[in-house]
Amino acid sequence: MNRKMINRIMLAAFLFLLACAQAYAQTDPLPSWNDGAAKKSIFEFVKKVTARGGAGFVPPAERIAVFDNDGTLWAEQPMYFQLIFALDRVKALALQHPEWKEKEPFASLLKGDLNGALAGGEPAIFQIVMATHAGMTTEEFEKIVRDWTATAKHPKSGRFYTEMVYRPMLDLLAYLRGNGFKTFIVSGGGVDFMRVFSEKVYGIPPEQVIGSSGKLKFELRDGKPVLVKLPEIDFIDDKSGKPAGIHKVIGRRPILAFGNSDGDLQMLQWTAAGSGARFMAIVHHTDGEREWAYDRKSSIGQLNTALDEANAKGWTVVNMKNDWKRIFAFEK
Amino acid sequence: MNRKMINRIMLAAFLFLLACAQAYAQTDPLPSWNDGAAKKSIFEFVKKVTARGGAGFVPPAERIAVFDNDGTLWAEQPMYFQLIFALDRVKALALQHPEWKEKEPFASLLKGDLNGALAGGEPAIFQIVMATHAGMTTEEFEKIVRDWTATAKHPKSGRFYTEMVYRPMLDLLAYLRGNGFKTFIVSGGGVDFMRVFSEKVYGIPPEQVIGSSGKLKFELRDGKPVLVKLPEIDFIDDKSGKPAGIHKVIGRRPILAFGNSDGDLQMLQWTAAGSGARFMAIVHHTDGEREWAYDRKSSIGQLNTALDEANAKGWTVVNMKNDWKRIFAFEK
Repeated sequence: MNRKMINRIMLAAFLFLLACAQAYAQTDPLPSWNDGAAKKSIFEFVKKVTARGGAGFVPPAERIAVFDNDGTLWAEQPMYFQLIFALDRVKALALQHPEWKEKEPFASLLKGDLNGALAGGEPAIFQIVMATHAGMTTEEFEKIVRDWTATAKHPKSGRFYTEMVYRPMLDLLAYLRGNGFKTFIVSGGGVDFMRVFSEKVYGIPPEQVIGSSGKLKFELRDGKPVLVKLPEIDFIDDKSGKPAGIHKVIGRRPILAFGNSDGDLQMLQWTAAGSGARFMAIVHHTDGEREWAYDRKSSIGQLNTALDEANAKGWTVVNMKNDWKRIFAFEK
Repeated sequence: MNRKMINRIMLAAFLFLLACAQAYAQTDPLPSWNDGAAKKSIFEFVKKVTARGGAGFVPPAERIAVFDNDGTLWAEQPMYFQLIFALDRVKALALQHPEWKEKEPFASLLKGDLNGALAGGEPAIFQIVMATHAGMTTEEFEKIVRDWTATAKHPKSGRFYTEMVYRPMLDLLAYLRGNGFKTFIVSGGGVDFMRVFSEKVYGIPPEQVIGSSGKLKFELRDGKPVLVKLPEIDFIDDKSGKPAGIHKVIGRRPILAFGNSDGDLQMLQWTAAGSGARFMAIVHHTDGEREWAYDRKSSIGQLNTALDEANAKGWTVVNMKNDWKRIFAFEK
C-alpha cells in the first residue's frame, strides 16, 4: 500500500469518526427543551445517579421518579379536565335525574351557570364528582372515561384532552426510563380517571399511577364479581396526602419529584429529605401566549409557597416560556 | 482435511449438541416441584399466555400475578409471624408502659398467658397491633422490623422467619418473572411489615406489595418531613378487601392468583372473572411431617369455602405433601 492510499484511508476514517461524533451530539434526549439551566440540571442529575462507582450512584431499583399530572404533565386550564368531564357527565345524566332541575349545584349547572354551580365551594364539587364518579362498577366507569377522552375536545385548542400533554415532559419521562428510572404519577386527580389513558399517553402503566380515590365495594352480581364505586372518599392524594400516597403505594422515597403547584409542596419536601442525590422541580406557567400564565393568585394550580420554597432551596424552576421549545404534543 | 478428521469433528459436534440438549432438558424451571397435575397446569398456563400469535396470548404488561403471603409464600404456624413480632414488641416495650401490668390484653401477655391475651378476640389483637405498629415514623418502624427479622427465630425450626419461605414458590416467582410476569404480594399482613424483606426474600420490590395499613400523618419535625403511623386502620387487605386492594394499587385485573385460605377467595374469584386465560391456585397444607397439616377447622389460615370453590371450578389445588419436593428455602 502506498502512502497516498494510506492517507486516503486515514482521511476516510477521520471523516467517519467525525460524522459519528456529530450524529451522537445531535441525539439530544430532550429535544423539546431549550438549552438552559433547567435542562442542564436534569442532565447533571441523571449523569450523577447513573454513574456506576460515582459518589451519587443510585441502583436502578431505587430510581423512583414522581410526577404530578394536572399542570405538570398536561394542561389544567380553563379548569381541571376531570372537572370538565364531570360537568359533561352531569349534562349526559340529567334526563335520568329530573330532580336535578330543582337541586343545586345541578340546577345552576344545567342552566349553563357554572359560577353559580361552583358557588357552593367544595361541597358542591364533591356532589358533582360523586354523582358522576360513583354508583357504577369500576369497569363501567372505565368505559365512560374512555368514550369521553375519545370524543370530548378542549374548548380553546379544539384538541382531544389527551393531546394537551406537554411534549417536553414526554421527552423527560422517556429519557428517565431510558436511564433506568421507574416513573410514577402522583396526582390529586382521580386514579380511576387517569389510568384510562396514562399508559397510552405517558407510557405509565396503571400500577404506577397514584391518585385520589373513592371507596369500593366487592359484590357478586349473578355470580360475577364486581367492584362498585361508592359515593365516599377513600383517599385525597393532594398536599400532605401526596407523601402518604407515595408511601402507601410505592413504599420507598422518590429521588426525583416534579410538580407545579402548592399541592405538590409536601411531595417535593418528602423527596428532598432523603439522603443522597435528589432532584426537585417545578413547572412554572409563564407562557400566556402558547399556554397560560398563572401562579400566586390562580384559583387553579396555585403556585405560591412552593415557588418561594423552590427559590429558597435551589430547586429547579422550569420557566415554560424560556425553557420549552415546544409546549404541546400536537405542535409541529 | 481427510475423511477421518471430518468424522472426528462431526462426532464432536454431535456430542456437543447432545450435551446442550441434555442440559436444556435438565433445566427444570420448577425444580422443587414434583411432576404432577399442579406443576403441569402451571407449565401449560405459562406456555399458553406467552405463545405469540396463540389464542391465549397475553401481552407482558398485562401478565399480573398476585400471591397471598402468609401460608402461601411463607409459613403461618404456630401463628402469623407478624403477630409473633407484635408479641415480641409488647415484651420489649413493657418497661416503657408500666400501666400494661394492669391492662388487658397486655397483662395476660406479659404473664406469658397468650390464650388469655387473645381471649379478647379481634379488639384485643387490634390493641396489640396498634400498640406495636403505630406512634412512630415509618422509618422508625422499618428499622424495628429489620432488627427483628435479623434476630428473631421460629419456635419450631429455630430458623429466621425469612427462611421459613417455600422454596417451590420462590421457583414459581422466578419462573413467572422470567416469562414477563410482574409478581405482586396481596396479603392481609401489614404492608409496612412485609416491605422490609419482600425484595430480598422474594425478589418483589416494595411497590409490588399490597397489604393492610394504618393511616399516616405527614409532619415537619424541626423542618424535616416525616410520616407518622397513626393508631387507626386505613385498609384491611383481606377477603373482599383483596380485590379492592388490587384495584386500588394495580388498577388492572391479575391473570394469575395464588392463595391458601378463605381470605383469598374473593381475590381468586376476581381473577377468575376476567376474560382470556386465567390461573387460580390454592396451596393446601397437607404435610404434617415436613410442615403443618390444616384446613377446614384451623383458626389460622382456615381453608373451607375456598377449597370447595376450587374443587368445583377446577382451580389448581397444590397438595403440599405430594406436589412439593422440598418445602423450605433452607432445606438441602
